[in-house]
Formats: sequence, structure tokens, C-alpha cells
Amino acid sequence: MTTQELAADFAALLKEGRDHEAAAKYNADDIVSYEALDGPMAEMRGKDALRQKGEWWVTNHEIHGATVEGPYVNGDRFCMRFAYDFTRKETGERLKMDEIGVYEVKGGKIVSERFFYGAM
Amino acid sequence: MTTQELAADFAALLKEGRDHEAAAKYNADDIVSYEALDGPMAEMRGKDALRQKGEWWVTNHEIHGATVEGPYVNGDRFCMRFAYDFTRKETGERLKMDEIGVYEVKGGKIVSERFFYGAM
Repeated sequence: MTTQELAADFAALLKEGRDHEAAAKYNADDIVSYEALDGPMAEMRGKDALRQKGEWWVTNHEIHGATVEGPYVNGDRFCMRFAYDFTRKETGERLKMDEIGVYEVKGGKIVSERFFYGAM
Repeated sequence: MTTQELAADFAALLKEGRDHEAAAKYNADDIVSYEALDGPMAEMRGKDALRQKGEWWVTNHEIHGATVEGPYVNGDRFCMRFAYDFTRKETGERLKMDEIGVYEVKGGKIVSERFFYGAM
């Protein structure tokens, strides 16, 4: 499976809202995730840790709308672009997020993901 | 100047169509540029080589419309998203391009740029 093929399938799953399935299928066991945030989520390691983070996100946010674009491929990396309209349940704040994710592929698995945030 | 400040100024220049000025101001002398293409442009090195590539692009393409979004920042890197509607002068083909650029900053200069292409 080429990076182009992997990226196309990964993107198709995300566009159907099947994020957990995409992560289960393609995240490497020792994947590293880099967020543009301070604190414990700035750098997380491991497929299990990322699965828990994903579950935390879904539990704590109400999603009103999502746009998923991509993949954008270059060699062994690809990008996705996400736009979310959501409410943070804890505070009731309704927020928009515009984000680009860059994924690095080795041996048919995603070994790193790095998220970049746009100003809204 | 932080990466956030550099990225904001770089993005503002691109949004005004001042690409050459942005590159002159921020590209490191030994910048490396990675395109998702085969051939001589796949990897280009040096500010002068990139300036020539930029001039080649402008000379050989007629731009009908351009959308520039960003910056999207994470640590010492940032992304920009570009959408172009253009005609390749040599062939007369009218094309659309949807692209993400990822830039790496060190010491107040852009030391690498990597372009990712979306399917249109």
C-alpha cells in the first residue's frame, strides 16, 4: 500500500466520521502526536494514549458541524484539513476550529501526526 | 520575532500577492524546498534557486484566481493553504491546484518548505 493509497483510505474514513476506525487501522503502536498546545497533550506517545485522547474529545465536546478536506500528499507524508464547529460541554462555549494535520507514514502505518491551528 | 509573528507577516505578504518580497525577507540562504513532484523540482536548495523557480512560475502561468489561507502554527513550523486557478501558458491548459505548504523556521528564517497537493 502506497502512502497515496493509505492517505486516501484514511481520509475517506474521516470523512464518514469513522475517526476511531481510521486510527485503529493505521496508527502505529508507537505513534507520536504533536499538538500546538501547552500541557500534557503537547506531545503524546502511543496508539492507546491517542485512543483515550480521542474518546475524551468525543465525550467532552458536542460537534455541530465538521469539514474534512484532503488528503494532500508529498512522499511519505500527507496533510488533512479540518474545520469544526463545536461546544465545549464543560463551559458551554461554542467555538470554531480550523486545523491542519500532517501525518508521517513508515511501513504502512502512521508514525507521527502534528496539528497546526489557524486563527479563526 | 516568534514563529507566530514571522508566520503572520509572511502570510500577510502572500495574501497581498507579494510572494517574492516574502521569500526575500524570510527564506534562509540555504533553504530546502520539497515538491511532491518527480524531476528537478522535487528538491531544490538555496534562496537563489527558489527565487528563479518563483520567477519561472510567474512567467509561465497566467493566474486567474488565488486563495491564500493561514498561517496555521505549531512550535517552529507553520502551514499555509493555497488554491489556484491558472492557465499553463505553454499548453493552454486551464488547471486548478489545491496545495498545503509546511514551513520550518530556525533563527528567524524559513529553512525548509514542503508542498502537499490535494486531488481536485
